[in-house]
Amino acid sequence: VNNLYDNKTKPRGSLGRLEDLGMRIVEIRGHVPQRLRAAIVVAAADHGVAAEGVSAYPAEVTAQMVANFHAGGAAVNVLAREAGAEVVVRDVGVGAPTANIADGPAMSDERCAELRAAGGALVDELDVDVVALGEMGIGNSTSAAALTAALLGVDPERVVGRGTGVDDDGLARKVEVVRRAVAANQGRDPLAALGGFELAFLAGVAERCAERRLVVLLDGFISSAAALAAPAARGVLVASHRSPEPGHALILDALGLTPLLDLGLRLGEGSGAALALPLLTASIAILNDMATFEDAGVTDAGR
Amino acid sequence: VNNLYDNKTKPRGSLGRLEDLGMRIVEIRGHVPQRLRAAIVVAAADHGVAAEGVSAYPAEVTAQMVANFHAGGAAVNVLAREAGAEVVVRDVGVGAPTANIADGPAMSDERCAELRAAGGALVDELDVDVVALGEMGIGNSTSAAALTAALLGVDPERVVGRGTGVDDDGLARKVEVVRRAVAANQGRDPLAALGGFELAFLAGVAERCAERRLVVLLDGFISSAAALAAPAARGVLVASHRSPEPGHALILDALGLTPLLDLGLRLGEGSGAALALPLLTASIAILNDMATFEDAGVTDAGR
Repeated sequence: VNNLYDNKTKPRGSLGRLEDLGMRIVEIRGHVPQRLRAAIVVAAADHGVAAEGVSAYPAEVTAQMVANFHAGGAAVNVLAREAGAEVVVRDVGVGAPTANIADGPAMSDERCAELRAAGGALVDELDVDVVALGEMGIGNSTSAAALTAALLGVDPERVVGRGTGVDDDGLARKVEVVRRAVAANQGRDPLAALGGFELAFLAGVAERCAERRLVVLLDGFISSAAALAAPAARGVLVASHRSPEPGHALILDALGLTPLLDLGLRLGEGSGAALALPLLTASIAILNDMATFEDAGVTDAGR
Repeated sequence: VNNLYDNKTKPRGSLGRLEDLGMRIVEIRGHVPQRLRAAIVVAAADHGVAAEGVSAYPAEVTAQMVANFHAGGAAVNVLAREAGAEVVVRDVGVGAPTANIADGPAMSDERCAELRAAGGALVDELDVDVVALGEMGIGNSTSAAALTAALLGVDPERVVGRGTGVDDDGLARKVEVVRRAVAANQGRDPLAALGGFELAFLAGVAERCAERRLVVLLDGFISSAAALAAPAARGVLVASHRSPEPGHALILDALGLTPLLDLGLRLGEGSGAALALPLLTASIAILNDMATFEDAGVTDAGR
């Protein structure tokens, strides 16, 4: 593809990574969208591993936050409205947690396959160019850490972070729990064994987006772990931001992605993706709305 | 000020630098704006130093681009529309360049004072919370480099960059021209002697914004050099992005500012400020629109 930005009234390449972003979107979609339409899929589920005390929050918060998403009062709702994106919330196991990954597999391979299929089916209901991956589930940064450690073959200590706010003791406990989880699930499919229900669902969303040539916009560590478990989606991923979770940097490196924002965001829900969405929209608006050198009668010294 | 984000339904601090940004806006304004209103002031002027061959573009492009701004076809127009901001274009010397700074002062001290006053007067016409600084002027990255070298007392070689696209020879020539300009204007007021008309105007904009407690959103190197020349504005500055111009990093360090974006933008016009504006708007929307723990009945483990 030629660089479609080169005939616009500005020095060549002067919009930097915004031009790379726009060209990536055009390459994925196969055309220049007239106006970028986006949905943020927020998948929510509970995690048996929460019983290990790996989160600063009690498990009941998952259900409370799902109600908050439906009422439109959560961060992702506000940020999605600002960005002109739709929020699609899916309860894929709230109040009915996975098994505790520290002792064995989170779910059966069949359940995992069903969730991936359900994620794919949701994509087929959407009429958008970009699908952002969001999640909610107390304990899911432990699940994402275990999944990442297993998929990348790295030591849990390098992957585990504080999630949304565990203290020093909690962090040490979390590393041990991830170590037990990886050991207890050797030889199993990592996504089914270590991923939560929402991670399996989001992996299915990403896979179907790749088939439909839709852009998958990652949020933070947890949504990125789901995408890491969906190698078929590799060609359609865009990274919105870099979270402070150490495992996120490892995943972004493994996927070869450079995030757009680096603002210390560690909320999840798709909130970082929502904050980056205006950059995606802007990159496409430039292609549709900006004057060319010819249109505007501007001397093109860089020709 | 208490952190107004702490009673919202999310872990404390989990929106990272977005919370710092919002608190800074609230601190500058003295209240939580109901909805952030922004204008991008694009000041344009020509530069006698362009005759030294320091730009990849002929001087006629300044006037052509001003016409493009008025027609709404430039990058800043498109990006401002996306961000919901007004673009205010001011011709403060297009076709009537400054004197060549390589040989002596760009303008008289009187002319500089008039331009600062005019910038201040423009601010009084605006009904906004945020004023972004934009500029257009072939040769103005040379002027900004000389101004920065003089104000920070650093060698021109550390400040000068490729602007919007000069080649290796042009870069070496630019360093020499900046060296001559700094030497030719020792002991003079740096802004009048080395700044362009648009830089003096923008310094006045920033100064008046500080008096009116409006946020000044910097764009890239050139607008930041104008703000550096307006010490009275120090308390109201927000950095939108880090440009690849080496002088820009020096200014941001000197001002103690961490930019929101780092996307290799080097266009100017206020385009980087326009791209960062949705982050400012989002930081305030969170304060206005997001549910509290009490509202939403969510357990606040971080209390």
